[in-house]
Amino acid sequence: MGPEIQFVLNSFSFLIWGVLIMWMCAGFTMLESGSVRTKNASVICLKNVGLYAIAGLMFYLIGYNLMYVDVSGFIGSLGLFYGTSGAEQALLGGDESAAAAVMENGYSVMSDWFFQMVFVATTCSIVSGTLAERVRLWSFFLFVAVLTGLIYPVVGAWTWGGGWLAELGFQDFAGSSIVHSTGGWAALAGAIIVGARHGKFREDGSIKLTPPSNVPVVTLGIFILWMGWFAFNGGSQLALSGVADAVAISNILVNTNLAACGGFIAAIALSRPVLGRIDLMGSLNGVIAGLVSITAGPDIVAHYWAIIIGAVGGVIGLLGVKALEHFRVDDVVGAVPAHLFAGIWGTLAVCIVAGGNLLVQLAGILAIGAFVFSVSMLAWLAIRQLMGVRVTLDVERHGQDVAELGIEAYPEFVVLQDPDL
Amino acid sequence: MGPEIQFVLNSFSFLIWGVLIMWMCAGFTMLESGSVRTKNASVICLKNVGLYAIAGLMFYLIGYNLMYVDVSGFIGSLGLFYGTSGAEQALLGGDESAAAAVMENGYSVMSDWFFQMVFVATTCSIVSGTLAERVRLWSFFLFVAVLTGLIYPVVGAWTWGGGWLAELGFQDFAGSSIVHSTGGWAALAGAIIVGARHGKFREDGSIKLTPPSNVPVVTLGIFILWMGWFAFNGGSQLALSGVADAVAISNILVNTNLAACGGFIAAIALSRPVLGRIDLMGSLNGVIAGLVSITAGPDIVAHYWAIIIGAVGGVIGLLGVKALEHFRVDDVVGAVPAHLFAGIWGTLAVCIVAGGNLLVQLAGILAIGAFVFSVSMLAWLAIRQLMGVRVTLDVERHGQDVAELGIEAYPEFVVLQDPDL
Amino acid sequence: MGPEIQFVLNSFSFLIWGVLIMWMCAGFTMLESGSVRTKNASVICLKNVGLYAIAGLMFYLIGYNLMYVDVSGFIGSLGLFYGTSGAEQALLGGDESAAAAVMENGYSVMSDWFFQMVFVATTCSIVSGTLAERVRLWSFFLFVAVLTGLIYPVVGAWTWGGGWLAELGFQDFAGSSIVHSTGGWAALAGAIIVGARHGKFREDGSIKLTPPSNVPVVTLGIFILWMGWFAFNGGSQLALSGVADAVAISNILVNTNLAACGGFIAAIALSRPVLGRIDLMGSLNGVIAGLVSITAGPDIVAHYWAIIIGAVGGVIGLLGVKALEHFRVDDVVGAVPAHLFAGIWGTLAVCIVAGGNLLVQLAGILAIGAFVFSVSMLAWLAIRQLMGVRVTLDVERHGQDVAELGIEAYPEFVVLQDPDL
Repeated sequence: MGPEIQFVLNSFSFLIWGVLIMWMCAGFTMLESGSVRTKNASVICLKNVGLYAIAGLMFYLIGYNLMYVDVSGFIGSLGLFYGTSGAEQALLGGDESAAAAVMENGYSVMSDWFFQMVFVATTCSIVSGTLAERVRLWSFFLFVAVLTGLIYPVVGAWTWGGGWLAELGFQDFAGSSIVHSTGGWAALAGAIIVGARHGKFREDGSIKLTPPSNVPVVTLGIFILWMGWFAFNGGSQLALSGVADAVAISNILVNTNLAACGGFIAAIALSRPVLGRIDLMGSLNGVIAGLVSITAGPDIVAHYWAIIIGAVGGVIGLLGVKALEHFRVDDVVGAVPAHLFAGIWGTLAVCIVAGGNLLVQLAGILAIGAFVFSVSMLAWLAIRQLMGVRVTLDVERHGQDVAELGIEAYPEFVVLQDPDL
Repeated sequence: MGPEIQFVLNSFSFLIWGVLIMWMCAGFTMLESGSVRTKNASVICLKNVGLYAIAGLMFYLIGYNLMYVDVSGFIGSLGLFYGTSGAEQALLGGDESAAAAVMENGYSVMSDWFFQMVFVATTCSIVSGTLAERVRLWSFFLFVAVLTGLIYPVVGAWTWGGGWLAELGFQDFAGSSIVHSTGGWAALAGAIIVGARHGKFREDGSIKLTPPSNVPVVTLGIFILWMGWFAFNGGSQLALSGVADAVAISNILVNTNLAACGGFIAAIALSRPVLGRIDLMGSLNGVIAGLVSITAGPDIVAHYWAIIIGAVGGVIGLLGVKALEHFRVDDVVGAVPAHLFAGIWGTLAVCIVAGGNLLVQLAGILAIGAFVFSVSMLAWLAIRQLMGVRVTLDVERHGQDVAELGIEAYPEFVVLQDPDL
Repeated sequence: MGPEIQFVLNSFSFLIWGVLIMWMCAGFTMLESGSVRTKNASVICLKNVGLYAIAGLMFYLIGYNLMYVDVSGFIGSLGLFYGTSGAEQALLGGDESAAAAVMENGYSVMSDWFFQMVFVATTCSIVSGTLAERVRLWSFFLFVAVLTGLIYPVVGAWTWGGGWLAELGFQDFAGSSIVHSTGGWAALAGAIIVGARHGKFREDGSIKLTPPSNVPVVTLGIFILWMGWFAFNGGSQLALSGVADAVAISNILVNTNLAACGGFIAAIALSRPVLGRIDLMGSLNGVIAGLVSITAGPDIVAHYWAIIIGAVGGVIGLLGVKALEHFRVDDVVGAVPAHLFAGIWGTLAVCIVAGGNLLVQLAGILAIGAFVFSVSMLAWLAIRQLMGVRVTLDVERHGQDVAELGIEAYPEFVVLQDPDL
């Protein structure tokens, strides 16, 4: 294959997979808007559209430069904006002689930007799910700006940007830690600062059930995420320029699928003994946990390991929900177990069959965790100082939809009032 | 890259992007069925499936020929049907010597047809949204046949088909005017002839609120459209056969995304001062308006201009809704502001950074507007004469679902009766 | 085109179309969960996620081997697991000299596996729709394991695996019989053994209407399936390695679309005389029936035949629903008419313009039907013996959601009680 065809296919690979990863935002939106109570479903929709818009702008403004340009150990460039290279502009302007310089990059500059941008948005989606039903709209948007403009790019600079963790040999193929644990730590910090929903954890130690309000919509979200994950992991091969790439991406898609299957089966099998019933939401979260688990090393050739890694992830996701409840941390969609806990497991699982070094992987997990959690705590505290982070009790009672947007998600439908209010 | 690989990639590009553009029909369907009141949600679903079916048949029967074959200034061929070329049939029949003749076309004949066909359907979807909740099912289908078999192909012949506007130098990369304004003008003509929904504009000058009945479904529609727009604009490069194409498509996807982000941010920021609240529907419509605005010139290299163009589009979309209300034109989903007004803006914006000539762009806007609006008026009037265009007041009160289909969209759910009825 | 680029494009074609076919599972899920009554919507979601997980694991464990490896007439290998070839592992391990051996296969081993796996899942989805609202969750999952691990792979071995039907010259391009009729026969056997829903067929000969509970969700499902079908049929070209492939796939997508349009138009036109009203569900099922009909021979060059074949399919689908009702077979979503009856028609239609031999096609239809129906009957009977196949009358009355999962699909919404209960 000549360099031109390689350039075209690499760029196209970034773009087409990138479009499918963007689609994951719709998956998170459906998952979350179906999981919350009807009175908060509109706001969660707006939050998810908004976070994607903010992530796109912040990553254009400063994020990509900070993560990938001139990374020196801990941080990249502080320059503003990112764009088409000079050689590319010359080529588009008709200067055919610029083609060689363009091709040298291996892929078009903005195809890579697009692919990286949709990853950032995923990180934010994790946070919105955990904090649903009580975080203020503008406070959340402000945190999204910090997460996409600072926290995520710095973690990215350490790793995919070629910084110190990359130099140590830290392995995280498509981001079990870099994307999912980062989102999970940020969500956990938010859950601690924002606090639990009113009435979720009762004084007598019991926990109020808050079942999903729209199960088909939740299920749609799971399918969208499962579909998008093929792009998320497969596209992370970052090239489609030869036989080895084609083989690798094929294996990645297969392993991604098997891990999700494993996560589902493990979670549904375990749900009866652990939760006392076949648990739909737990089983669906097992899919997500399985997918997160394989994300750090989806390019293995022993496919049965993908099933095992995913199954362990499914178990972790299910038990993690119980653990969070034990510590009275309120995570509306179980995002912290599925993305943070399973993400840590996935990052460690790389040591089993994908050649990761245990100490390096642990170092990466701890460093990312310490950085993301502490900066997120600071950010949430600063936002609380600045404008508050949670809605009033009255807003929480009546729902954010009516209170913050003056709109109901299902205005014509007769819905039951929560008896606690 | 040799001509064979160019042929394969060009054809594949048409097909894969085309599939994602077809998916936009689902986006419009979700947007519209979630926006109308529950009593009309089934009919709007049927209209959207039906319009896609009719568009596909009409474009096969006469549309493509009229738009692209032997265009002489104003109109193409009046021949019926369109199909695989003789050389292609020979090749598929096993005659390898036909391969050279096939390759000369640069892409397979029907891959282009497929790509163009899904564009037509988009135009119709715009009309169904505006006229929801009162236009008769069969009257609408009849108009769709006229729009897809005559109006759209003629506009297309003038421009993409190489007719007089193309010769003048009119620029409209992916169809801000050709697709979106055409749909918008047809919708506006329909809104005037069909009239507003009963009770929408009260005698005392106040306007009845008709909030969306299912916000998550609307939001899903927005995400589908946003996703599909990458294909809509990216695929309009019409080739994937070299470095320049790959670079151009990458820029197009990035600009498309940035414009949507800009449209959303502008609309949500402006919604409080203009509408008195953070407006979910207005913000979501800002996404669409931003996307429409960049569609005429998404291949710019100064990406920040995409944000600005999209943001202005978002503002136009929001103010346009108020303007339409002022003139008591009833547009259920705000399609005329988002597609027509923002489409005009996008066509003019090409003059800023994409090298458009202001006079030529104005000529195109006016010519397309005059033609589409007047022929649509005639068509709607003729249909009114022939079979009527709107349902009876009784049908409108009880909803088109029960009256026209004998089915409810949500039959088991208890829904509130509209107090005005 | 050199062998390397062919390898890359063939593999990529399997993967990207495969991802879109996987997406069809979401389409079936939406179609089914919107078609059932609210009290059973959660269980149908779980069944559909579960069947995809089980199908993926079974096809990895034994299915693919049985279908494609060392097929000798009736059956392939009984070996367990399937995976990346030795040459591929060597290449991924850095041994560049293995590239030639890898390329000889024409595509990566697991890209084909992935593509075939998503086909299996489709077959199962057909069964879940027919048997909704009364089949037990675990009984259904057990049947899915039999269908994906034994029944489907054996049918596949006879045909696509190169077995006796393939040797006879049986033609079924993308699986009108192999996928859709197989699913339909399995569903029909299940419907007979499991029986109709309580109260569906009344003693006085009348039939209880069970309208879809959520029409927009059903419509979304139809669009997803329509979209995925482009991949289902287009990807079945099994290659993207030259001009002929690109031309063929283009024609396939066009014919697939035209057949769906024809199916819709025929069904909606016929619904008034046959059913007494414009029937939304019948029209949507016409889309599916049209798609199934063209699936056996979508690579024709006379595109108008696709419209005719699809239209006949639409008629068959509509009349088939009446026929099933006549025999008091309860098929919740009309899957047997759309997939089995239209699948038989499609397999015969190959004789008209795609060069099929009528006797051979009939032999294939009968052999597949006899095998799938009888083994499915045995499997359902065995499962009935083992654990029962249907829920108790009490569970049926209160809905499987609450009884089997302890969860409602729409817990906050006030829904109407079925007056018969």
